This record gives sequence, structure tokens and C-alpha cells, in this order.
Amino acid sequence: MTRIAFIGAGSVVFTQGLLADLFGFDDLGELHIALHDIDPERLRTAASAAAVIATELGARPTISAHLDRRAALEGCDFVVNIIQVGMNDATRIDFDLPARYGVRQTIGDTLGVGGVFRALRTFPVLRGLAADIAAVCPDAWLLNYTNPMAMNVWYLSALGVRNVVGLCHSVHWTMYDLSELVGVPFEEVRYLAGGVNHQSWVLRFEHGGESLYPALDEVIRRDPEMLRRVRVDMYRRLGYYPTETSEHSSEYVPWYLPHDSEIERLRLPVGEYLRIVEENVASYEKTRDAVKAGDPVPVEATMEYAPQIIHSIVTGAPRTVYGNVVNDGLISNLPSGSVVEVPCLVDALGVQPTAIGVLPAACAAVNAAYVNVNTLVVKAALDQDPRAIRQALMADPATAATLTVDQIWALCNDLVVAHSNLLDPELRAVL
Amino acid sequence: MTRIAFIGAGSVVFTQGLLADLFGFDDLGELHIALHDIDPERLRTAASAAAVIATELGARPTISAHLDRRAALEGCDFVVNIIQVGMNDATRIDFDLPARYGVRQTIGDTLGVGGVFRALRTFPVLRGLAADIAAVCPDAWLLNYTNPMAMNVWYLSALGVRNVVGLCHSVHWTMYDLSELVGVPFEEVRYLAGGVNHQSWVLRFEHGGESLYPALDEVIRRDPEMLRRVRVDMYRRLGYYPTETSEHSSEYVPWYLPHDSEIERLRLPVGEYLRIVEENVASYEKTRDAVKAGDPVPVEATMEYAPQIIHSIVTGAPRTVYGNVVNDGLISNLPSGSVVEVPCLVDALGVQPTAIGVLPAACAAVNAAYVNVNTLVVKAALDQDPRAIRQALMADPATAATLTVDQIWALCNDLVVAHSNLLDPELRAVL
Amino acid sequence: MTRIAFIGAGSVVFTQGLLADLFGFDDLGELHIALHDIDPERLRTAASAAAVIATELGARPTISAHLDRRAALEGCDFVVNIIQVGMNDATRIDFDLPARYGVRQTIGDTLGVGGVFRALRTFPVLRGLAADIAAVCPDAWLLNYTNPMAMNVWYLSALGVRNVVGLCHSVHWTMYDLSELVGVPFEEVRYLAGGVNHQSWVLRFEHGGESLYPALDEVIRRDPEMLRRVRVDMYRRLGYYPTETSEHSSEYVPWYLPHDSEIERLRLPVGEYLRIVEENVASYEKTRDAVKAGDPVPVEATMEYAPQIIHSIVTGAPRTVYGNVVNDGLISNLPSGSVVEVPCLVDALGVQPTAIGVLPAACAAVNAAYVNVNTLVVKAALDQDPRAIRQALMADPATAATLTVDQIWALCNDLVVAHSNLLDPELRAVL
Amino acid sequence: MTRIAFIGAGSVVFTQGLLADLFGFDDLGELHIALHDIDPERLRTAASAAAVIATELGARPTISAHLDRRAALEGCDFVVNIIQVGMNDATRIDFDLPARYGVRQTIGDTLGVGGVFRALRTFPVLRGLAADIAAVCPDAWLLNYTNPMAMNVWYLSALGVRNVVGLCHSVHWTMYDLSELVGVPFEEVRYLAGGVNHQSWVLRFEHGGESLYPALDEVIRRDPEMLRRVRVDMYRRLGYYPTETSEHSSEYVPWYLPHDSEIERLRLPVGEYLRIVEENVASYEKTRDAVKAGDPVPVEATMEYAPQIIHSIVTGAPRTVYGNVVNDGLISNLPSGSVVEVPCLVDALGVQPTAIGVLPAACAAVNAAYVNVNTLVVKAALDQDPRAIRQALMADPATAATLTVDQIWALCNDLVVAHSNLLDPELRAVL
Repeated sequence: MTRIAFIGAGSVVFTQGLLADLFGFDDLGELHIALHDIDPERLRTAASAAAVIATELGARPTISAHLDRRAALEGCDFVVNIIQVGMNDATRIDFDLPARYGVRQTIGDTLGVGGVFRALRTFPVLRGLAADIAAVCPDAWLLNYTNPMAMNVWYLSALGVRNVVGLCHSVHWTMYDLSELVGVPFEEVRYLAGGVNHQSWVLRFEHGGESLYPALDEVIRRDPEMLRRVRVDMYRRLGYYPTETSEHSSEYVPWYLPHDSEIERLRLPVGEYLRIVEENVASYEKTRDAVKAGDPVPVEATMEYAPQIIHSIVTGAPRTVYGNVVNDGLISNLPSGSVVEVPCLVDALGVQPTAIGVLPAACAAVNAAYVNVNTLVVKAALDQDPRAIRQALMADPATAATLTVDQIWALCNDLVVAHSNLLDPELRAVL
Repeated sequence: MTRIAFIGAGSVVFTQGLLADLFGFDDLGELHIALHDIDPERLRTAASAAAVIATELGARPTISAHLDRRAALEGCDFVVNIIQVGMNDATRIDFDLPARYGVRQTIGDTLGVGGVFRALRTFPVLRGLAADIAAVCPDAWLLNYTNPMAMNVWYLSALGVRNVVGLCHSVHWTMYDLSELVGVPFEEVRYLAGGVNHQSWVLRFEHGGESLYPALDEVIRRDPEMLRRVRVDMYRRLGYYPTETSEHSSEYVPWYLPHDSEIERLRLPVGEYLRIVEENVASYEKTRDAVKAGDPVPVEATMEYAPQIIHSIVTGAPRTVYGNVVNDGLISNLPSGSVVEVPCLVDALGVQPTAIGVLPAACAAVNAAYVNVNTLVVKAALDQDPRAIRQALMADPATAATLTVDQIWALCNDLVVAHSNLLDPELRAVL
Repeated sequence: MTRIAFIGAGSVVFTQGLLADLFGFDDLGELHIALHDIDPERLRTAASAAAVIATELGARPTISAHLDRRAALEGCDFVVNIIQVGMNDATRIDFDLPARYGVRQTIGDTLGVGGVFRALRTFPVLRGLAADIAAVCPDAWLLNYTNPMAMNVWYLSALGVRNVVGLCHSVHWTMYDLSELVGVPFEEVRYLAGGVNHQSWVLRFEHGGESLYPALDEVIRRDPEMLRRVRVDMYRRLGYYPTETSEHSSEYVPWYLPHDSEIERLRLPVGEYLRIVEENVASYEKTRDAVKAGDPVPVEATMEYAPQIIHSIVTGAPRTVYGNVVNDGLISNLPSGSVVEVPCLVDALGVQPTAIGVLPAACAAVNAAYVNVNTLVVKAALDQDPRAIRQALMADPATAATLTVDQIWALCNDLVVAHSNLLDPELRAVL
Repeated sequence: MTRIAFIGAGSVVFTQGLLADLFGFDDLGELHIALHDIDPERLRTAASAAAVIATELGARPTISAHLDRRAALEGCDFVVNIIQVGMNDATRIDFDLPARYGVRQTIGDTLGVGGVFRALRTFPVLRGLAADIAAVCPDAWLLNYTNPMAMNVWYLSALGVRNVVGLCHSVHWTMYDLSELVGVPFEEVRYLAGGVNHQSWVLRFEHGGESLYPALDEVIRRDPEMLRRVRVDMYRRLGYYPTETSEHSSEYVPWYLPHDSEIERLRLPVGEYLRIVEENVASYEKTRDAVKAGDPVPVEATMEYAPQIIHSIVTGAPRTVYGNVVNDGLISNLPSGSVVEVPCLVDALGVQPTAIGVLPAACAAVNAAYVNVNTLVVKAALDQDPRAIRQALMADPATAATLTVDQIWALCNDLVVAHSNLLDPELRAVL
């Protein structure tokens, strides 16, 4: 029997999608789905939805629901981490306080002020999770979806979690969209991407042995509106297409968000994630009400890697996935020890990252700034060094292009106070 | 259409097996098999055999035969290298001259005197091959089977061949045999091996999440005759099972071949390869006579990786194979730049090595000696430095445990003279 | 006899100082000073000044003056490079054009727009110099003073110049000033610095085995005006004192120059170097007129490393100097292959860099941005890739914090046109 | 005041030499020499000799003698480690037991059976020393003379001793002898050596900018008896002169000691160290009797690095010394983390290793075997893994060229029993 824990299962919509994929496999053998959340209502909703999905797909898993995390983890083979620490209230703080200082953010979950504080409030929970895993399922694969991806995976690895990989669909959907743009069936496109999460680069984009980049250039040439996308702007200047959406990509560089004119030119949706948060709440409530009422819930397959990885490890069927893992020889011109995103082989042995060598210099330079921030945030947590939080934001490209150092320190002071109850005590210091 | 060149196709038995696998796939689309050999009779035999096999398997490839190598390579997607430079006469020299000095060899194609001189006479041909590939099919995948594997792949990489991987079935068959030994179905065994070709180590050997090494220990305990195998002896002392046969494994270490008592205890078949050479000649002649007579030829599938790799690259179906590639971050405690054997992901993008981290210290120590020899032989060729040939054999574990340095130099002098016509002029120097 | 070439000897004031130091040693044996400049008047002035200094110090060197560079280099043991390509006109362009776009610079010779274009116009001359050295004095030590230091040393190393080291007095004078600030005799202070040129960090600052940083903190606490220095601001936030002056340090980070309020708070002298240029012209003219009139010229010893290095190599007396060299294992958390500044042993064998290990994370993060720019500028020259110039400035912290990407590209276009006659033809492209 | 502890001060003759050097400096300020030994008589003798030497040299140090090690270390600036664990009895076992198996040794203190067991019995004492240093003088420089040098320094570093360097005069005396051989004043010779302790290589050997190797070749050509030296034999084959005596150099390679004919040809003094041990005892007794009788004791300066290092650190005067330190970027083709011997800058900041880059391939190959043994012995101690002791000797070139694996294991069993009282309990296991 294969036992899979969902930590933060109350992110019901996401849980639904993953379960739909899992229950869609017919060769996984017996499954035990152990759901955990700290919110009883959300946990109940998740469990009900899981049962409904199983029924609709004709699967017969064991489903258990646990308010106690360690109970959920007991004896697990896989742990899917989809927690969101502080939920929407914390997210609003991440946007509102920086906005008062003039810092613009769109999604705010990866780098920048939002990403840094999301990491800092997630780390204490990850520390508990790591301790539980060490105690009751030390060999389990921890499939992390929680952002900020790179910092979380780095911190979990530093805590000694043996088998951890961070998963994100951005490479997949980028390639899907690019294929559509150039009019080639996605299945026929061959691609290689690599870099850091939400800022990888399409290193190869080919069809029938030929690069598709000229075709993309032609598409851009024909439609000047294409130039009003951040990722197209980055592609034209750096030579490689970035693997995140334009609003998201804009946050990790100093070039766009600080300028009013670029907000306009590139139609950047400042505060976008606050709107998404509202939608997520609405989606959740719809599911909650449906399961309460005994109505059917949507069962839509995704393309997420977690179910695929579980399938490959259980059955031995090899697959290629993109994973976020510690850079131990994988990308030679990004810092050793940082967390990078590379193609991974997954088969019965688990997720095995491939070494992709040297990134193009301009891409590596952009990634290097991203890694700097990660390094300092992880250091802040490992060394319990509140000064490193400020240093992280001084190194953050978009923040540093907007604020003076005094403002950065003042904003940090405001944020450690506002998030105080979720932070490690040492990191609440006002400097 | 997919075009595949076989260089050294006159190694007919091997060619037959690979073609049987290839023609067995039904989703490869149109195939052009371009056979090359410098021996017209063998080339004719190979071409006839290929046609027969295609017919027997209902495949309809284009088959062409070329005495001119570059013509065979023209426009190829894949190049399978199975040449044997100097053939049996050279092999006999590799055994007979060292034997006069008291150096014992069993297979002599990987390390030791035989391996070193096999490399030195193969390199000039590889140089020509590399130049041809650069000229007419620079993006082709070069799938090398020719020994000495690690040195050849190293040299080819140093020559700038872009897509080269060395393939060997020893990991596969080792795991197959081990599974049989412990009585677990091979399909259910999960394994990880890594190291250098013919001297990788079974790092993980598991069933249902548990190590199978205790079961192997029990098998050994029950049957004292098991101890009379070199690889079992090495396993007991080093803690990890080596991936080559006992006779072969004995050649890369100083511990066995130099001692009469160990020859006896471990039943080491000195000169074994000379017997295999005779068998190969007989097999070839049988096939030759059969195709001449219009008789059927054996069509036996193999488990070789080359057809699998071609299939994965053409169709995109992911697979795990073992490949010999340059150590660029793959095994962190073997020298960077050397050629190592690791699991590789193969899909539409090609063969992508996974990074496996740190080898157990005792295993890495044994591999390090092997790498030393490779380093010096490749250096001898790249720098045209005849002294490095002697230094390679001074570093060779079994040779150095047998001869004095004066003898090593005298033996080298004898060998450069004996192989003179196949060596680079600079390397024929008598020192 | 020891032969020393001064390339760009017409930077007379600097030449004077170095010669005063050299002629002050009494154990160097016979010296031949070969002066080279492309400006005949400056060359004549330098030669006359050299003769005067020799006389005043009682030294009897051979002094020769050469308009032909290779003639000056012939048989040299040491080459001191103090060229300034494009002189004051080019410098004015480096300041004025960016200023029109709102880019502020103070010195503009290391990073930023000024640093990048100074590199690009210096590289072609360095290429000629490297070729001459290879031809007539391949073993000579090339002691480079020309900025941008790190990029020039990187490029020279990439061109294969064997013995090159970049020299700068900023570490020395920083420590001298710091000693004064805390009231400890400079001779009694022990210090270690490391990083990149003009942005190294005072890693140790000690007296009698105790850190002097607390004493510095006390000095800062007592005098609030201290906080109005960029380097004090950086020290307080990053924890390590930077080794360049405040105006210079402000140019390599995104934090100060883009903000009007910081210009005011930190009293940043925008355009400062243009004033220095005027002073340099005046100094030169004073010397020129003095030697013409047969008047004495000032003979002031410096603390520059070049004379010290020459003395140590010639006599074998060991010394510690700070040198800029390729990072081959020296600083483990800065990119391998970049040019870093570390303590070096200099004795009869030459300049031998010491490995200093890991920089503090916040310092390394700041240096990483500096290295990114260097990487892309050197790549622009090596690959003749005009796009990499733009990418360098997109990666430049102060530039990227000021301009939009469109502005960066427009500014680059203006600059390649303005500097056109000094750039490699491929790099003059308007994109 | 500078406080220097001598641990194992009862190695009186060595202590005398170091003190003579130290007391010969007139600018060290006040000195406190704290002598420690576990043998009261030897400790008394050392203290008396120290007093006599001070008087003879007109120095006025404080001298204290301590049977308690921690008391000696209290507040020290420098710790000189010259212990010999097990003394002569243990040494005799190291020679006699292997001899019964046919293993020949000459010095037996670096590699091979003698070196391995010397390490294993020294490590527990080093562990205590490291704990004491951490407790009472954590910033002290530990200047280690105790063999096996590389393994001891590696183990001490792994235990977290901050400032440790291993010192050996072999590079110095090799260069001294080589200079004499070619008839050039030692002071005029420039040299660079690097590798591992007792097996470094003379990478540069120059006079007036020209290599002296041709002169050495000529000396060898003229005197055929020169060829009967191991180090000359190695030099001729490998191209670089080794930095240890011939008898010592013979122990780290598989080429000489296993062959009767080479013992004869190269006049190898098997068991040599047992004779030296006798001489050491006689020297000690002579000194002991002299100080008892109030007679003068010899005051001979040495060229050892410890007094020089102390002088440079105390006064700030820069020097070049050879030190054994952890390979953190120093020699790029020897394993990172191993202990290597390189030139070091020593000044007020301490001993600062220089990075020397790539060793010649043949030299690195020989060193690699040496490092393999070190790796496994240190692992045996750190992991308390008795199997790694056997693996170390299986990797030891001379041992593996002499014995079968069964013999190696039997010999190890004999030795762990014979040395039982000096080994860590876990390592006494008979396997």
C-alpha cells in the first residue's frame, strides 16, 4: 500500500486536482490518502471532496483526515506540502505595507518583500514538518508546492530532509503556450529549461531538430502588442525565454515595476495576487458548499508533477519532470548549494536531477541576483540573524531599485512587527 | 527518416543483435542503416545479415554499405561505434608480450597493458571519426561501444565531439545476476549503480523498500564456493558489489592477478579473452557462411542500450540507461573531467546524465586508480607524450604490483614497436 | 640587469611616484627603465622627469623612451601598465551622455556605464599589448594599474598573458584611514581584506589580538556626521567595511546614486572625476613645464605595490601585497574564473595569491552583482557580442536602478556611436 | 607576552633545536615556554635543557613544566605538537609484525602499515589535545610536527581545530641538496614545490630565470651511481623531483620495496627507522645526563619553520614557508578536503596558504594513491569503522603490491591486537 500525506490539504482546490490525477491511475495499487490541515472546516471539506472524487473516478482509496500532523505523516511514502502559512491576512500585509513605501508587487510569493516574508513565516512550520518527517517517515519523498519554492526547498534541505523536491508547473505551461504561439503541436516540441524556480530559461525549443526561436521572433515581429509582455521583453534582450508569466517575471528584476512608464507599457497588474486570493476563497467556498450539499465537485485532471512522480516511483515507469533541488553540480555557473530548477529523471529510485552544465551568461547573471536573496533569507533563519533579512532586501533587485536603504530597514521593521506572531522570536527584532 | 551509421559494422554478431532490437520497434518510422567497415568481406556479410534480419522481422529499412566512412556518416542522426582496431592480431600482442614479463591479463580491454595499448591504437581512428562527424553530422549522437570505454569517451569528448555517450551492459547483467542470486524477480528490483565503466558499484539494491544486501550476505554465507569469485571477495571487503564479472574485475586492482595463490583460489582464467576472440571469429564465420548460403541467421534481441536510446530520442519515450560521460558535477569525489558511469535520463532531448553525488570512500579510492591511468593515457595522446604511456602503466594497479619500473619501461618499448603501425608516430618512441 | 617597461608612461605623475620608489631601493642592481607612450610630448616629459628623479635620488638607471611599444617591451622583466585609452575626451563622454539620461556617476572607472565603456575601449589596446608581450617578453610580470581593474585583468588573462596581476592601493589606504579613525598606529594593526577591486571587505581589523570594529562603532556613535559617509552606511548594514572611498563605493550598488535624497544625505559628489581629470592635466603641465625649464620635480615616495613587487621578485625578500587575480580556488563563494582581490605572497617566485575561503554572505551578494557586469563585458569582447554590452548594463546595479531597459539600450547606442573609433568594429553595432 | 606550549616536549633533542631558534630572535618580546610531557623524567630533562639553552643564548624566557596538558596550554598563542604516541615499543611492532608477512618498510611513519597504525594510535591523543585547545586557547596556532603529518592535520581539522598547520623540513632540505648537486648557491635558487607531505614535487627549480633541471640531468648523466637513488629514479620517470629522501620516498609507491632486485639496485635500508630510534634514545640519554651533571648542552640552530612562523606572526615580518593544510582550492587536481603541502605566506595574520593550481598529471596520480589511504584512515577514525582500516591498506600502494587481501586482513587483525591499548575501542575489532 502506498500512503500519501497532504499537508495543508485544506487548500482544497489544489488537493482536488492532485487527487483527480492520482485516482486516475489504475496501476498504483492500494492508496491511503492522509489529509492534514490545522483548519477543521477546511480539513472536513477536503476529506469530503476526496471521497467524492474517488467515487466519481471509481477509485477505492483509504482516506483519513488528521488535525495532528504527525499522525497524518506516520508511515507515509510521500508527503505533498501545500501549506500556506498566515493565509490571506498575511498576504495582504505583504502587499499593503510595502505599497505604502512605494514598493509594487504583482504576486509577491517568490522574491521581493512578499517572497522574503512568506519564507520567514513558513520556515518555522517547515521546521516542525521536518522534525515530524524525521520521526515517523524519514525516507518519504517530500513533494513541495509551497512558495517561495527555492527558499523553502533550500531550508528543508538544510534541515536534513533527505528526499525533498520542489514542484512547479511553470516550465510546462510556458512550453505549452510557446508551442501554441508558434503553431506547433505541443507533443512534438522538444525543450530544455533550467535556472531557478519562476525564473528558468528556455534553453532549447525545437521541432524536428530545428530551433523554434526564429518562428517565435517572427510571431513577435508581426504583432507589436507582443512587445508589451514582460517575458517577451526579457526574451528579446536576454536571448532566452523566461518560464514564468509576465506579471510574475517582472518581480525578480529591477527593470519594470519601479517605473510608472513600464507599468503602463507592459500593463503590469500591481496587486494582482490579492485578486487571486479572493478567487481562491470563492473557489474554496463553492467546493465547501457543494460537498456539504452532497453536490458533485469538479474532477479535473491537472498536469502537476506530484501524481506523476508518485506513479513513477511506485510503478517504475520512467518520466522526465522539472524539479527544484540543491545545486550539487547541476548548473555550474550558479552557486553550489543554492536551489535550482532542472530536468529530473524519475523512476523507481526517485527523483534524480540531471546536470545541465553552464547557463548563458546573461541568464545566470539574472538568476544570481535571485540566489543572493535566497542565500540571505535562509541564512537569516539558520543563523537567527535579523540583519540578514534587511541584507536580503538590499540584495533584492526590485526592492533595491525602489527604496533607499533607510526605507528598506524601516519597511522591514514594520513587517517584522506586523507578522510578529508567525516569525521566529529572534527575527522579530526591530533594527 | 532516422539515419543510423554502424562504424565497424563488420563486428557482425554485435551488429546483428543491435539491428534485431531496432527492427523490433514498430514506432521508429523510416530507418536508414548505413554500414561501414574497412574489411570488404565483413562489410558484405554485415549488409547481407542486416537484410535477412529485416526480412525476418518484417521491417523495411533502407540498408547501405560503405567502405568510405564519411559516406556512411553523411547526415546521420546516430552513430554506433563498434570498431576494433588491429583486430585479433593486436589483441594477441597485448597478451603475449606482457605475459613474457609475467603480467597476467584476463580480458585486457579496459585498463592494464591491454587496455592502454588498445586505447592508443584506437585513438587515431577515433580522431578520424571525430573529424568526419564534425564535417557531416555534427549533431549526431555517437553511441560508443568500443573499448576501452572510459578512455575512448574521454578522448572523443576532448576532441570536441558534442553528443557522445559510452554504452555497456555490465550494470544491467550484474543486476540481473544479483537478482537471480537472491531469488527476487529482476523487474521488482530497484538499483542504483555508479563509478567507472567495468568498475561501477551497486550503491542501492532493494526490493519493496528494503536492502537486498543482507539476503546476498546470506547466500554467500551458505555457499562457501561463492567466496571464490573476485567480485564477491571485493564486495565483502569494500561493502558494495562491483558491476563487472570476476575475471574482468580482477584486472583493475593490484590484489589478485599478481599472486599465484589467488589465481588458484579465485579460479582466474588468465588469457581468457584469447579464447573469446576465437569464438568471435567462429561466430563471424558461421554468419558469413550462412548469409552466403542464403541460410537464416539468428535474430536474437539483446538488452543493449543503443537501440533503446535511439527509440527514446526518436519517440520521446523516457528511459533510464547507464551511460559513460564526462564527470561534470556527476560524482563529486571522482576527478572532474574524467569519464564516469551514471544513470542517465534519455528522452527526446538525448542522453542526460544524473548527478549521483558522493561515492563510498573505499569505492572512490579504487576508481581513483582507474582514473589515474585514463588521465595519463589521454594525456599521452593529446600531448603526444610517449613518457605518459609509461607513467600510465606505473599508475596501473595490477601492472605496478607485478613489474619493476625498469620492466614497465622495457615492456612499453616492446609494445610500441610491436604495435608501431597503429600508433601515432610520436608515440612510437622507444625510451 | 632588470628591465622595466612603463606602458602609458605619459601619465607622468604616476610614473614619477613609481620611479621614486624604485630608485629609492639600493639593492635592485642595474635597472633599465623603458618608457612608452603614444603621445610624444608626454613621453619626452616622462623621460626627462625620470632622469631628474634618478639624479635627485642618486640612482643610475638606464632610461629609454619609445614611441614603439614593442621596442619598449623587448626583453622586459616587468611591464607596468598605466595607459588611459581615449584620455579626458572619452571620460567626458562617459559622464555626459549618461547624465542626459539621468544616470549619475562619481568616478565612473570601475563599473557602471563609465566602467563598461572604459573597458570596451581599453580592451583593443590590451589585445595589442598582450600580443607584444607574447612576442618579446612572455615571462614578464604585467603589473596592471589601468582601470577597470577587474575587467582588464580578466581580459588579459583570457588572452593568455601568463603573469598578470592588478594592483590598487585602496585596501592599503582604507586600512590607513581606519587605523587613524580608531587611534591605533597603522603599523600595529593587523588586517585581512578580500573581495573584488574597489569593493573588497575588511574581514579582519585587529590590534593585539582583539577586533577593532567595536572601537570603530564607538567612533561612529560619537560623531553622527560619520553616518553621512557611504562606506560607513554600508559598514553598518553589511557588517564589514568596504575598501573604497565613499564616492567610489556608491557607484557599485543600487542604493545611493539614484536617489536625490541620498545624494544630499551622503554628500555624493556627482561628476567628481571630471574635476580630478582637470587636476591631473594641471599636474602634468606643471611637471612638463618644470622639466622643460630644468627646474626640480617633486620626488615623493608612494606606497604602491609595483615597486615593492619588483623588489621582492628581484631580491627574494617576501612581502604581502593585495593583488587582483583570477579566482581559481581563492574565494569559494565568488564565481570561479572571475577576478578577485586577495592578499598575495610575493617573493622570488612572483605574486602568489592566497586562498581566503568564504566571504560573508552579504558581502558576497554585493560582489556577485559586480562580477555579473564583468562577466558580460568580457564576454562582449571575447565573443564580439554587442548585445552583451546591453546585458552588462542591465545587470549593473546603479544603472538598472535608474533607467528602464529601453533607456539602457538607447544609452548604449549613443555611447557606441560616441566612442566608435576606439571600439572593436563588431561592438559598434546599434541595436 | 607570547606563550608557546610544547606538547611532547620530552622529545628533547627536537625541543632543543626549536628553542635555540626561538631564543636566537631578539625581537620576540617576552616569551613563556610551557613544556608538557607525560613522562616526568623526560619533562624534567626538557625543562633543564631549555633553561641551559636560554642562558647560553642570553635569553630570559619564563619556562614552566607541566605533566597536565591543559595547564600547559592555558592561554597559549602557539602550540608545538611533537608527541610520539607509543614511543619505540609501538614503532617496533609497526615494523616487526608486517615483516613477518613480508612487508618491508624503511621509515614507516607516513603511509603504509606503519603510517596507518601510527595515525590510529595518535588520533585519540589528538582528540584530547583538540578538546583542550578548544577549552583554553581556541585561537592558538597549532604547529604540528607529529607524523603521519597529512592524516594528523586532516583529523585535527575535522575535529574543528581552527588554526592548524603541519610543518616539515623536507622541501627545504631537498632544495638545499639539489642546489649543492648542481653547484648553485642555495640562496640564489628559486623553487616551487607542492603535493602532499613527504611526496611533494619540485615544480620549479631555477637560477637566474632558467630551469636547473637540465643541469641536474647532466649531473645524473655523469654519475651512474646517481641512478641508484629512488628519488632520482622517480625524477627521471615522472619528470619532477620528489621532496623526500630515497628511503622514505620508496614507501609510498608500489614500485620498489616489494622487489628484492630493487632493494639491491637502490640500496634500500629496510628497517632503517629502527636504527634511528636507537640513535634518538642515545641522544636523549646524552642530554639527560648532561643536564643532570650541569654540563653544557648543544645549542644548534635549525631551519625549522615553527620558530620562523612564531616570529612572523609576532613581529609581522612576512616569510614564505611550506605548510600542510586542508586543500580548499589550493591544488585543483587533488581531492578537495584532503591535506596538501603548499607554499604559505606567513605574516601577522598567520599562515596563509597560496593556491598553486594544477599538478603535473603523473605527480597527481602518485599523490592520489597517498590521499586515498589518508581518506580511509581518517574515515576509520571519524566513523569508528574498523573495516576502513583494511580498506586503507588495500589502497596503500606498497602494501597492496606485496600482500594478498587475506594477508592484509590478517595483518590488520594482528596489529589491532598488538596496539590494542592505544586504539579507540571500536577500532580494536578483529574482522
